[in-house]
Amino acid sequence: MLKSRSKAVAVSVGEPAGVGPDLCLSSLADASALAQVWYYGCARTLQERAQLLGLEVSISASGVWRQGAMNIIDLPFPLPVNPGQADSGNAQALLAALRRALDDCTEGRCQALVTAPVSKQIIQEAGVPFTGHTEWLAEATGADQAVMMLATKQLRVVLATTHLPLREVPDAITAEQLRRTLVITHQTLVEQFGIPSPRLLVCGLNPHAGEGGLLGREEIEVIAPVIKALAAQGYQVQGPIPADTAFIPSRLATADAIIAMYHDQGLAALKAVGFAEAVNITLGLPIVRTSVDHGTAFDLAGSGKADHTSLLAAIDMAVSLEPSASYKEPSASYKEPSALSG
Amino acid sequence: MLKSRSKAVAVSVGEPAGVGPDLCLSSLADASALAQVWYYGCARTLQERAQLLGLEVSISASGVWRQGAMNIIDLPFPLPVNPGQADSGNAQALLAALRRALDDCTEGRCQALVTAPVSKQIIQEAGVPFTGHTEWLAEATGADQAVMMLATKQLRVVLATTHLPLREVPDAITAEQLRRTLVITHQTLVEQFGIPSPRLLVCGLNPHAGEGGLLGREEIEVIAPVIKALAAQGYQVQGPIPADTAFIPSRLATADAIIAMYHDQGLAALKAVGFAEAVNITLGLPIVRTSVDHGTAFDLAGSGKADHTSLLAAIDMAVSLEPSASYKEPSASYKEPSALSG
Repeated sequence: MLKSRSKAVAVSVGEPAGVGPDLCLSSLADASALAQVWYYGCARTLQERAQLLGLEVSISASGVWRQGAMNIIDLPFPLPVNPGQADSGNAQALLAALRRALDDCTEGRCQALVTAPVSKQIIQEAGVPFTGHTEWLAEATGADQAVMMLATKQLRVVLATTHLPLREVPDAITAEQLRRTLVITHQTLVEQFGIPSPRLLVCGLNPHAGEGGLLGREEIEVIAPVIKALAAQGYQVQGPIPADTAFIPSRLATADAIIAMYHDQGLAALKAVGFAEAVNITLGLPIVRTSVDHGTAFDLAGSGKADHTSLLAAIDMAVSLEPSASYKEPSASYKEPSALSG
Repeated sequence: MLKSRSKAVAVSVGEPAGVGPDLCLSSLADASALAQVWYYGCARTLQERAQLLGLEVSISASGVWRQGAMNIIDLPFPLPVNPGQADSGNAQALLAALRRALDDCTEGRCQALVTAPVSKQIIQEAGVPFTGHTEWLAEATGADQAVMMLATKQLRVVLATTHLPLREVPDAITAEQLRRTLVITHQTLVEQFGIPSPRLLVCGLNPHAGEGGLLGREEIEVIAPVIKALAAQGYQVQGPIPADTAFIPSRLATADAIIAMYHDQGLAALKAVGFAEAVNITLGLPIVRTSVDHGTAFDLAGSGKADHTSLLAAIDMAVSLEPSASYKEPSASYKEPSALSG
């Protein structure tokens, strides 16, 4: 394993009119203490934002690492950037920076990718069918299925579905998709988090986990059979349990990750107990990838009021995660665990 | 206003094979310090449970208040009660106790109703189409719409829909139903909680509150127009906001109640931060009604391990709430208590 200070981390600066540049600039000194950080974005934009924020930052785009500088892989934006006023004309350049950061991770020049926020809406306005970093990275790396985890020091929450209208959620949860989510979660906890025998706690879809079928039958027809089959294979997986009591301290003490069926079921509780600390981690990719857990916050861009706690936590988490054994073989991107017994 | 110690509170003991009897017995001394509590249930069952738990309790079913005793309105169960093994043959008697407790509240003999848990499934097995205390009480009192609030000392969460399968939620949220939920919430906060100008924060239905229509259109078509119309009438109501950041401390500081669109969206977060303290309050009824926020916990019945914190909190909350001015009118069924003032 590399010593953490010598790990190279690729940070994509994200939407330039949002708080991404602000967060990268204000956290530079702290981030540099964690890893050799390379920033993927537009050097001119970062220089302008530093001036606006009154930060003295030495920006280096030479491609040779310079201690004490902000080391940028420069991918210039075609249009001027005005904080708070996003322009879809810069969206393709923004995605080019993300692509370059990804390539440097898959080719081994960096050991982890950390993403600052983008705006789905702005990228879609540029004609790109973009539904989120997680989905984009899954497609770009050829991953069978990417899984979204949000983690604080106390709690890890995995989402069985991510950014779907609520009415599409019940039909999106199929047995095969849920089974793969649980297997990927198990495998990542073993390989990246170093938990030899992880305990998974799975929420129901409906209130009270369907209450024996009175409040919905997805638990009986889909969720419980998947859990039962995996438990029979030796996985430590329990549920479905009512989501409203999944996040109480006595429950959390029995689980290494909670699997929520959809976005708000898992994330409202997670953020209630640990908002600024939460880190978004993508499981199932051939690279280590983390992200801030907040959006572009256009209203704060350039104001000096944006809080970089989540970005630093994302870099810290990225450094702490082990590359998975399976990550070296992107085509065979996950393997069934064999050493579950004992 | 009555002094709290002289308020009479009706506690329905609920499902006898669950923890209801245990909680009523173990909290008796503390409950008696809060109010004149009358317990509605089966004296024989309570006597048996007290023996099982090794509690010395003087049970009085005389109908005349006795200080230091457990004062029971006795509605005997036809079948023996075995802790942990519910029998639907006792369900009608259980509902009769609930009905009697309700009548004593609507007729002014008690000032508030507190309910211990029942099992929807067991009552339904007895052939009664019972979907929950809240819905049953709304129908029994002829209330136009009952609204469910869960409250801790820090946080009040109101549900726009309650016990519905998740796939039925989006269509259940109509403009008129949401408008009434918000108006009832506002009115209750003014009249029962004594908050002169309450601030309501309304969650979106979809992740990220629909993200401008990308993740669902219910916010644009239903929720936002209702909020806008009420705000124009002078209500302090904001939203729709993304549910995953509705429960972070900086948001909570701006609201007297959070309105969640469905059960798990609101309650997972509420219970994550204040499980044992949470009290269920029904808004929109002609009586004051609170409840524990947990279920029958059949596995704990008779074990001595059930925690009565939530029942005591429910009694405490019931005592603290003011009867609403509007509650005197709906059916003329509620009269100011006179004999008990002191």
